[in-house]
Order: sequence, then structure tokens, then C-alpha cells
Amino acid sequence: MSYRAPLDSYRLLLADVVGYDRVAATDRFSEASMETVEAVLTEAGRMCEEVLAPLRRQGDLDPARLENGVVRTSKGFAEGYAAIAEGGWVASSADPAHGGMGLPLTVTTCVNDMMSAACLALQLSPLMTQGQIEALEHHASDAIKALYLPKLVTGEWAGTMNLTEPQAGSDVGALTTRAEPNGDGSYAITGQKIYITWGDNDFTGNVCHLVLARLPGAVPGTKGISLFLVPKYLPDADGNPGVANTLKVVSLEHKLGLHGSPTCVMEYDGATGWLVGEEHDGMRAMFTMMNNARLGVGVQGIGVAEGAFQHALAYAQERKQGRSPEGTIIGHADVRRMLATMKAQTFAARAIGLATAVAIDMANATGGAEWTARAALLTPIAKAFGTDTGIEVASTGVQVHGGMGYVEETGAAQFMRDVRVTAIYEGTNGIQAMDLVGRKLMDGGEAAYRLMDEICTTAEDARGAFPDLAEALWQATEDLRETTEALVAMEPAARFAGAVPFLRGFALVLGAGYHLRAAMARREGGEARLARFYIERILPETAGCLAHARSGADSLMALSPEDLVA
Amino acid sequence: MSYRAPLDSYRLLLADVVGYDRVAATDRFSEASMETVEAVLTEAGRMCEEVLAPLRRQGDLDPARLENGVVRTSKGFAEGYAAIAEGGWVASSADPAHGGMGLPLTVTTCVNDMMSAACLALQLSPLMTQGQIEALEHHASDAIKALYLPKLVTGEWAGTMNLTEPQAGSDVGALTTRAEPNGDGSYAITGQKIYITWGDNDFTGNVCHLVLARLPGAVPGTKGISLFLVPKYLPDADGNPGVANTLKVVSLEHKLGLHGSPTCVMEYDGATGWLVGEEHDGMRAMFTMMNNARLGVGVQGIGVAEGAFQHALAYAQERKQGRSPEGTIIGHADVRRMLATMKAQTFAARAIGLATAVAIDMANATGGAEWTARAALLTPIAKAFGTDTGIEVASTGVQVHGGMGYVEETGAAQFMRDVRVTAIYEGTNGIQAMDLVGRKLMDGGEAAYRLMDEICTTAEDARGAFPDLAEALWQATEDLRETTEALVAMEPAARFAGAVPFLRGFALVLGAGYHLRAAMARREGGEARLARFYIERILPETAGCLAHARSGADSLMALSPEDLVA
Repeated sequence: MSYRAPLDSYRLLLADVVGYDRVAATDRFSEASMETVEAVLTEAGRMCEEVLAPLRRQGDLDPARLENGVVRTSKGFAEGYAAIAEGGWVASSADPAHGGMGLPLTVTTCVNDMMSAACLALQLSPLMTQGQIEALEHHASDAIKALYLPKLVTGEWAGTMNLTEPQAGSDVGALTTRAEPNGDGSYAITGQKIYITWGDNDFTGNVCHLVLARLPGAVPGTKGISLFLVPKYLPDADGNPGVANTLKVVSLEHKLGLHGSPTCVMEYDGATGWLVGEEHDGMRAMFTMMNNARLGVGVQGIGVAEGAFQHALAYAQERKQGRSPEGTIIGHADVRRMLATMKAQTFAARAIGLATAVAIDMANATGGAEWTARAALLTPIAKAFGTDTGIEVASTGVQVHGGMGYVEETGAAQFMRDVRVTAIYEGTNGIQAMDLVGRKLMDGGEAAYRLMDEICTTAEDARGAFPDLAEALWQATEDLRETTEALVAMEPAARFAGAVPFLRGFALVLGAGYHLRAAMARREGGEARLARFYIERILPETAGCLAHARSGADSLMALSPEDLVA
Repeated sequence: MSYRAPLDSYRLLLADVVGYDRVAATDRFSEASMETVEAVLTEAGRMCEEVLAPLRRQGDLDPARLENGVVRTSKGFAEGYAAIAEGGWVASSADPAHGGMGLPLTVTTCVNDMMSAACLALQLSPLMTQGQIEALEHHASDAIKALYLPKLVTGEWAGTMNLTEPQAGSDVGALTTRAEPNGDGSYAITGQKIYITWGDNDFTGNVCHLVLARLPGAVPGTKGISLFLVPKYLPDADGNPGVANTLKVVSLEHKLGLHGSPTCVMEYDGATGWLVGEEHDGMRAMFTMMNNARLGVGVQGIGVAEGAFQHALAYAQERKQGRSPEGTIIGHADVRRMLATMKAQTFAARAIGLATAVAIDMANATGGAEWTARAALLTPIAKAFGTDTGIEVASTGVQVHGGMGYVEETGAAQFMRDVRVTAIYEGTNGIQAMDLVGRKLMDGGEAAYRLMDEICTTAEDARGAFPDLAEALWQATEDLRETTEALVAMEPAARFAGAVPFLRGFALVLGAGYHLRAAMARREGGEARLARFYIERILPETAGCLAHARSGADSLMALSPEDLVA
């Protein structure tokens, strides 16, 4: 079997690390007991192992292609998608009122993790649909909700998001796509959008595009942007796909990886669409979608890290080496170090991702401001650290394979190629870090300090069982606290200069806290040994990250563009 | 122009950082004055900019392929190779007695750096030939030298090295290729070799393979291995390519990158070869070749880092972004941070590479034991840190490009794909690190401490001009010294567990020392600002690396293979 769902890891994390019991104790999620969740994850895991994992390599070798303006997907992807839809895994958190299972996002996060590990290219399709469902649930009219949500939730139709234009990358405010009122409540959308993930497919009855565009007379910048739902086929009176809309896929990108996922250039030529949310308020709805998707993308990194780790571990266990004590390369200290690092970082990233999901579930279930702030604080960390971890772990997986890692047949390189974009899309990791030190510290660091207090409590609780690890964690957390205080006192420009290393330092400390909780739960187990490995050998990286962050902007911005050229 | 030779960087490094004047002051290299070297590098740089750089993308899009047992190279590669050969750049350090220019390896290192940046896939061919020339110069009989060296030095013929077999990767001692005496002084070689870089081409008159094989009755392991020269065409009485030898390319690997460089599976079916060096002493000759090649591979990483940096910088300077102060993305602090890190790390890695080359030149020119020890110490650091830097910088280059970086047309991803293997071949970077903490500390750390003393002297010299930077460098060097003392006191197994982070910490300290020397030479220049950036923001990473190294083996090897699986 090429992938094994890490069910025991979820069990440990949910029960003993991220406090899932609090989610199950809410009224809203009272049916999602640990027993139910385990059954759900077992079922989803089996589908990922048996149906999706075999498609990973297939999608790479047999890319999605454009034939006469229609996307033809990789062999087997239609069947794989059908399995996802039939299992209810397209959107397992969606509102039961629209046919969803209403499961906590924490559970969906585990399912997304497994689907990403098994076949990232295909998983991108439901991830896009999940984001669209979230946006429509919050911002669409009742008529749109009634028409579209049931079809999206079941996976009968798929969703996409259309932000980027050729001249406007991360600067969404610069977009120029136009929307003209048709006079009947609909709008005519005209413009070109790029990097549209799963902009088309040949396995759903319709593809629904959420498109950012400007109404006549809209002010420049992000305040003049509205959001429109633009389906590939216009629904007929019965809500079934009818006449083809005036939109098309112009071309597909030739990418480093994710060959099974068509990345489209879309052209809208007076295509019919309907407003979602208020006029000129499209960014707010889009942020709902992107915020959801940020955790989803972080989890893609975690899933790929798991897949790459399992792949490298299997290789190391079977690759014979006479001189190693074990008879295989796993006996070599440096191979052991690489594998342990992969496993320990994947655990840390997954814990952060699930802690984020728990915070979102608690915010949704209780409306508590502290949970909302916690979710907002953790989301950029989960996105950036999850995807950075995916990239690092996949690269280390290539290294474990030695020369075989560089040969595509092995499959190790594909993880690295596929996951690389996750640090870029849904807001680059640099943008995530700026969000963390900018918007997310605007409370004076309150939400951050509250989280650090909890990590310190974890350290205190562990002083008896693991005194040296507890002390190291406590010290690193204090270093993080002092750095946060320094950042809060800085101008935004100075914070931005050290944003990326600050985010990494923050994540490493969180990871150490979660490792120590796992060690406390299984004091004689491999978890305790992994926690020791992480805290002794990886956590010390934090000091360098935080020193960088405390440097402010001076020594960076003193370097002029001319200095860089010279 | 897609690549600009960094001539000013070489000028600064040679004159003020790595002390090239000492090389030019030796009898052996007295003709290679700074003026001469500058003229040589200008000439080589022009060839790289004008002839080689346009081939980079071509090789990627139009891979080398196997047609009826013959390798067909990418369009333009034959002309590119001809330019390299005509310029004398195949082996500019080779002995003038065999037609070489006899230039210091320091100069060849700069040329290799530029060729790697311009077109790594093609540069691999002369790099292989350089290693073969070195091995033959040291170990071959006079007859073989007279016949082969002039042809190899001019580039008329090319060389390869054949170590790896399917069942024996880094464990060379496990190889099974056989050599039977033919009774006429030649041998019949039979076996299969894999990962043979440039195992064939269509632009040289002959391809000369150095093949490791076992003679009848040889003991198992590395002590029973001999080295043979096995040409594609057997030289006739006049030394011209004659009858085809019984060897062939069976297949080419489908690799992550370096598509222009054919990586061959070679089959020897009783092929005629001649012994190089003594019977059963092949590993010594092969180590000569590999030792040379290790620096060469490290420099490949540096060259690609330079290419990727220039590519990203050009993009950042032209990518419009309304909200940035400069009007382009280079105005954003995080983009500036990425570019500055790329430039600063490339400088550090290049300085280490050139310091290694100077040590090798001084050892060759003076026979001094301290220089020999310095060269031996620095070589694994130059290889591993050079290639790790290439990989990191190329990945950051993709990130600077945002979504465009993931699209192959941009060219950013190719740097990342191409350079990834350099951390693997010529001994994985893990093996380099084990060499550093094992063999290279067998002198009780003497050579290492001598190098640290020099860095401390640099720090002392800078206390007036840059007191804070000098102090930070001094502290980091003391941390490195204490860690080295701790490693020297450990068992080898404990050293190996932290070998990779130790090597990185060592390299970061060296890099800081070289940056500070550059700052002292140009106190008002961008170099001083870059040194401050590096020492304030990157050097602090050292502490984490060294803490990891000091941890020994316990917390690593306590993790059993079963713990990793669970």
C-alpha cells in the first residue's frame, strides 16, 4: 500500500494535544463524539488509501489537457472524484440544511490532510468547492443558496475562485474585469483571469466560478470590487445545467507539478453572473473564502509531508546497506536524523493545523471572541508553516532516496514538485507572515500572549516528567514573548522585515508545546522520544529566527536595490 | 542578457577575502597575476553570457535522448561544447605538458561557477573530464597519459566516471563489475553501471570511461577494487578513435532536472580497458577524482544560486506593484529580505568555495602540510554548503516570482529542478558531513581550530570599524570552537548524529568571516551593508545548528525504526 492513513496520530492529537473534547462538548457539534469521528476518519482513510493514492502518479504522468476548449482530466480522476463525492468528503462540514454532514472543521481538516497525501492534484478540486460553499453560506442570497449549495455540497457541481489577473498578482485591487448590469438582476462579466485552479473538468455537471469584478463607476482599489457567481452552464427553470455561458478556458499552464490539476486561463466574454454579497463589498466575501482556504492549503502541505515521509521511510527500510547495523540505510545516523526530522516536523505542523481548526470550530459553535481571535492568529501560521513543512519534508524525502530520489520513477521528486506551489497560492507565505505581525498583532499581542500562556502551562505540567524538556520549552516561549513585545512596539515596516522568521519561530515553539503534550499522554511511547528529539535538536532553531525578527528593518532596508544589483 | 558574469565579485573575493595573492606569489603560479586572472575571467565570462546561457532553457525543453543506442544531445549543445573547448575551459588547470593552461584551480573554480550558472546541464560534461584528467595525471602510466591527456585537455575527447551499480549506491565496496586479464596488458570489463553522467554524447570524438571493477580473486569490499580506463572507441596505432569497444548505453534516466545532461545506464560486455594505478588500489585513484569533483559540485550549487538570484532580481525589478514604494515588488520588505538572503548566502558559499580552491592551489604549489589539511577540511564544507545554498536560493527564487515561479515558462523552477541533485551526487551531503566530523577531525581538530583562529583575527581587525559585527562573529566562532571540542571528545557515532547541522554551523561562521573581510575592504559600499545583513540576521542560525550538533546521538538513536513507523 503506497499510503497509510495516520489514524493513530489523529487520535492522539484530537484527544490529548489540541483538546477536541471541547468541540464535541458544544451543542452544535454534540453528535461528533470521538467515537463518531474515529469511524468517519477510518472510512475516509480507507478511500484515500485504496482509491486516491493510486491516482497520484497517474495524474503526474497523464496531465490534464485542453482539447477543443474542454478540459480532459487524467485517467482515473473521474472515478476518484466520484468516490470523494459519494463518501460525502467534498464538504463534510457543510450545513445539513444544504445536504452537508455538518461535521466540525477539525474533522474535515483530517480528511483534507489524508486526501492531500494521497493525491494532491485531485484534492484541490473539493478544496476549491469547500471555499465556495463557505462564501455562499455567508454572503449569497437565499435564492442562490437554495439553487447552488445542494449541488456543490454533494459534489455534483464544482466551485472555483477567480481573483488573479495578468497585471495584478497579490495586488488584487488592481484588477480590471468588468460587470455590467443586464437589467434583469444578472450581470454581464467581461475580462481575463489567470491561475484558475480546476477552472474546468469533465466529471461534474457544472463548474461554478466566483469572480471578482468591478461595477460601472466603482472606485479604484479593493473597495470597488464586487463578487459574482458565474456558472459554466446557466441553470434552467428546474435548476439543471442549461445553456452554456459565454466563458471559456483559453489555455492551461505548464507547471512544475500538480500536472493532474488543470490551472486555467479563463476568459469571460459578457458571461452571465449574479452578485454575491453587497455591491463593492466583494473583498469581504472573498476573504471568507480565502480564510477558509488558507487552513486548507496549510493542510495540503501537511498531507504531502506525511506522504513524502511514508514514502522515504519505506525506501529506507528496504534499501540494503551491508555496513549499516540494521542492514538497511535506516541504520545510518544521518538517515535516521532525516526521517526523525520529517516525522517530528510533520507532527508539529499537523498539531498547529488541528489547533487552528479547533479554534475555528469553537468560534463558530460558541461565538466566543477569544476563539475568534485564536483562529485568526493561528490561520497564517498554519498556512505558512504547514506548507513550508511540506516543502522541506518532501525535499528531505528526495535526499533519503539518494540518487534514486532524482529519478522521477521513484515518485519522491513528485511530492517536492507538487507541494512547492502551496507556499505561493492563497497568499504567499510572506503575505501570511505580514498578516501575522500586522493585523494579528493589532490587539497589542493579546491573543498571542494568551496562546503562549497555554504553552507555558504545558511546560509547567511537564516539569515533573520531563524537567529538561519543560525548561527548554519554557525558555523558548519566553524568548517568543519578548520578541513579540519588541514587535508590538515597532512600526509596521520594521515588523514586516522580520515577519517570516518570526512566524517560523512562533510555529517552532507551538510545535514544541504540542510535542510535549503528546509526550505527557504517552510517556513511555515513541511520542516521548520524538518530543525529546524535537525539543533538543529542532527547537533551538527558534533563537536564530527570533533574533532575525527582532532586528527590525534597518539592516534590511539599508540594502538598496542598487546594492543588490552590484 | 539572461546572465551577467559576476566579475566584480571575483575581484573582491580574490583580492580581499580569500588571499589569492599568496597563490600568485608561488613559483608554480607566478604567471597567474591578478591582471592575468581578470583577463581570463572576462573572456570566460563573455562566453558564458553569450554562448552558454541561451542553452539553459533549450536543454530543459529538448532533453538528451537515446536513439538506436546513441545519445543525441540537445540542440545547440554541440556548439556550446565547442566554444568551451576552443576557449580552453574544459580543463584550464591541466598541466601545460599535456596542453593545459596550468592555471590555478582557483581560476578554474570561477570559470566552473560561471559555466554552471549559464548552463549546468552542459557544464557537467567538462566537470567530469576535469576529474578524469586529475585522476590520470596522478595515477596513470606514462603511455596512457601521453595518449589520452592531450585529447581530454583540449576537449576533443570527454571523460566519465563509473562507480555506482544498481545494488551499490554510496556503498561502493559492494560493486560486482568484473575485470579479466586479456594477457596482452589489457582487461575485459563486464558489468552494469548506473547514473553515468554524460555517459555518451554526439560532439566529442571519443568518450573515455573510468570504471571501477574487481580483478579475479580480489578481496570483498573497497580493498578489492581496481580502476580501468575503457574508451568508447579503441585508439588505433596513431591514437585516433578506431574500433568500437563492446560497451553501450542501455537507457537514460528520466530525471527531475538536468534534462540536457544524459544520465546513462552503461553496459560493459567484455569491453577492453587498461589498468589505471595499481591492482586493487582503484579507490585511491577514484578518490583523487572524486575529491576534485567535490569542490566542482559545490561550485555548481554556487553557480546556480547566482543564476537564480539574477533571474529573481530581474523579475523583482520589473514586476509592477502600485502599493510598493519603488513601484515594483522590490519595494516590499519581504521581497527585499528574500533577495538579500539569496545574495548574502551566495557570497558566503562562493567565498568558501574559493578559499577551498586557494588551499588546494597552495598545497599543490608548496606541498605545505597545513595547506593540505586546510584543503581537506574545507572540501566537504564547500561541497555541502555550496549545493545546499544552490537549492535554497533556487527555491527562494521561485518564491520571489510568486505564481509565475510555478509556471515552467518563467525558468525559475528549472534552477530548482536542475540543482537538486548536487546535494546527492559525488557523495550525499550527509556523507560530506560525516567526512567532516570523522576523518577531518582525526587531527584532534587542529586544522579546524587554525581556521577559526583566522576568523577570530578577522573579527579583531574589524573591531574598530564594525564593533558590533566583530563581536557577533567572535562569539559565534567561540561557539563553533566549543562545539568542535565537544565533538572531538565524542565517539564517531555520536558525532555522526549531528554532522549535518555541525557542517552548516561551521559554514555560516566562515561565511560571516568572509563577509566581514569584504566589508573591511569596502567599508562604505554595499558589501558592508550586506555583511551587516548577514551577521545580524543569518548568522544567529548558527546557535541552533551547533546546539543540535552538541546533542550527540542519544536523543536521535533512541528513536527506533519502530518509533518512526508508528
